Amino acid sequence: MEKKNAGIKKINGGITSPKGYHATGSHIGIKECKKDLAIVYSDVPAKAVGVFTTNLLKASSVLWNQNLIKNHNMIQGIVVNSGNANVCTGEIGDKHTEMMAAELASCLGFNKNQVIVASTGVIGKLLPIEIIIKGIKNTCKTLGITENDARLAAEAIITTDTHPKEISVEFIIDNKKIRIGGMAKGSGMIHPNMATMLSFISTDINISRELLEKALKESIEESYNMISVDGDTSTSDSVILLANGMSNNSEILDEGEDYLTFKQALHYVNLYLAQEIVRDGEGANKFITVHVKGAASKQDAKILSKSVITSNLVKTAFFGEDANWGRIICAMGYSGANFDPSKVSIKYLNSGNSIEVMKDGMSLEFDEDLALKILKEKEIIVELILKDGESEAIAWGCDLSYDYVRINGSYRT
Amino acid sequence: MEKKNAGIKKINGGITSPKGYHATGSHIGIKECKKDLAIVYSDVPAKAVGVFTTNLLKASSVLWNQNLIKNHNMIQGIVVNSGNANVCTGEIGDKHTEMMAAELASCLGFNKNQVIVASTGVIGKLLPIEIIIKGIKNTCKTLGITENDARLAAEAIITTDTHPKEISVEFIIDNKKIRIGGMAKGSGMIHPNMATMLSFISTDINISRELLEKALKESIEESYNMISVDGDTSTSDSVILLANGMSNNSEILDEGEDYLTFKQALHYVNLYLAQEIVRDGEGANKFITVHVKGAASKQDAKILSKSVITSNLVKTAFFGEDANWGRIICAMGYSGANFDPSKVSIKYLNSGNSIEVMKDGMSLEFDEDLALKILKEKEIIVELILKDGESEAIAWGCDLSYDYVRINGSYRT
Repeated sequence: MEKKNAGIKKINGGITSPKGYHATGSHIGIKECKKDLAIVYSDVPAKAVGVFTTNLLKASSVLWNQNLIKNHNMIQGIVVNSGNANVCTGEIGDKHTEMMAAELASCLGFNKNQVIVASTGVIGKLLPIEIIIKGIKNTCKTLGITENDARLAAEAIITTDTHPKEISVEFIIDNKKIRIGGMAKGSGMIHPNMATMLSFISTDINISRELLEKALKESIEESYNMISVDGDTSTSDSVILLANGMSNNSEILDEGEDYLTFKQALHYVNLYLAQEIVRDGEGANKFITVHVKGAASKQDAKILSKSVITSNLVKTAFFGEDANWGRIICAMGYSGANFDPSKVSIKYLNSGNSIEVMKDGMSLEFDEDLALKILKEKEIIVELILKDGESEAIAWGCDLSYDYVRINGSYRT
Repeated sequence: MEKKNAGIKKINGGITSPKGYHATGSHIGIKECKKDLAIVYSDVPAKAVGVFTTNLLKASSVLWNQNLIKNHNMIQGIVVNSGNANVCTGEIGDKHTEMMAAELASCLGFNKNQVIVASTGVIGKLLPIEIIIKGIKNTCKTLGITENDARLAAEAIITTDTHPKEISVEFIIDNKKIRIGGMAKGSGMIHPNMATMLSFISTDINISRELLEKALKESIEESYNMISVDGDTSTSDSVILLANGMSNNSEILDEGEDYLTFKQALHYVNLYLAQEIVRDGEGANKFITVHVKGAASKQDAKILSKSVITSNLVKTAFFGEDANWGRIICAMGYSGANFDPSKVSIKYLNSGNSIEVMKDGMSLEFDEDLALKILKEKEIIVELILKDGESEAIAWGCDLSYDYVRINGSYRT
């Protein structure tokens, strides 16, 4: 899925790489020292589609954004604060979200209903709204002045992430150069079915809203929804995609070659950001890929790969560099997926080596030294080969380390 | 649920406390130093009922026991080895299970189809069957000679547990003294819907097989199935209950008062053992009780309480003694249960203090010092008060500590 073709190439840059997008980020005083406010805007109104958390409890801003997108509002700005999630804050919280949108709209000369709002951080505390309103006003003044604008925004949306995450790709459609840019945050509360994360994608492509939405939803199924850090689905998870049409290609209206090229490029961006989130998972030392092959159905393959990547016992075994494949087959067994345990084979792989530890449901004698050599690497692939059908799925996760416990034992205080 | 009445009293002793039961445990060489073989037998054949893991992958011994119980075999002996789970060992593994049963039967003078077998430990390695057969032979010779026989057996079935777990209760039915004894093991791979654990219960009551089974199943729903250490459901989980009828009460054939007394006593035993497993959870420092009240249905209440007690983020917050209730409401939100988040109140309690941190879906300003005082205790209760109905449920779990990672990062090697 990662191979590039259709002339899609990765380029330097992030959310501002496509035509007409601008951004910045600054420290306004929600957090103690780090940047905590990001602004993105487009020169012209953009079509917007999004996918949001399935948690019954939703951040105030998630409800705001869902409403804008449902009403097909053309979006021109995004304002994000980190350090406070504005969840469980009732009507006051809703008012604060609206005030953030209104302030950005007022500063930049459009309507509050054209502003996407996001808040990430601690649950259950009121936003320091005066600080934020003042911060938006001041930060807007720096737009276009600062260098590395995309990077500043990417830095301002992170919480426990150890580094910002951004990407940009370029490709040609209709003889026009098209770009997609993206930035994401997410480190803990990461789990399939919307990881605890925010991801913002911009593009200058001209495409129908229906196809924009279809491409995003399909891509998410195989990217953000296949990663897990800790099994917790947060209240703020959102992926938002803006398309402002400024590349001036003729509008894509059917699922022809141009659509497929765009979709492939978009998936490249989403997959990159999703994997970056896992690589930077709280306390993560290892990047683990679980590849299920030969499953009876796509659904079974997904359930199996996610169950393995989510198991605390599997994750601590990777932390301990222990080829304890029994925990893998055990996590498959309780996943609820349909498969024949007596036909499962399990392999560990890295870039240079491969070792089979279980074959056709039976343990194998294997070279522990070789297994350790593979498990000592930072990036490890687990292949789970079934004989139940032709379907496959890949999920990505990380190990469970002392640092995960340290980070989350002391996050709030 | 823990209050004693109907004259049920806790007494000293374990699995051998009811009439006619004997046991022992010894070190035979599967593990390096610790006891690794337990034997239990009844002077007369006993009715046996059991509940087993829902994992698709089952230990060879689980399949053996399910078959015996399904066929209503009268059971006279139990043989358990720790240190090796005999899972993913194919037909050889099945043969080994049968050999263990046959050896115990031969030593003690009954049929192999009257022997329950259990194996717990690492998955995917063949049992050292010659050591085990010799060990069963030698251990049988010590039966009745050693003191503290129940305790020896309880010690021999544990793996990463830090101490053996046993209990005995006594009550009167039909003017006869009835006893129930039990022992359990389990420390990691513990999750609702059969914790990763073994629990053996003996009783001398005279009761129909149907009622014996009914009492066990109903009790398990509210005890072992409501605990979680790490969310992993193992391949060996089993609760087995033997009733040899030696107390000579007239056989209980209906759900009258005698049945209810027995059921209450049995539940007392199961709840004690289930809670002991959580208290001794791998790396556990805190014993957490999550009590959901006012739920729309029993099922919703159970799902909510289990989702909270299973969340890594909730568990690390307890480890950090951090009143981060946002993670609790978040775990409720993604649980899949039906509830109204805008009506939820959350309280932390211990034996002496109580603090409300969320009311009707809104955060409250609360005394952080008092919260810390409560969270510093070893035993903490979380009350989740909904306004959706009249149903409630209680789940039990523990914190997630550095030691959990340490223990599981190096279990196999």
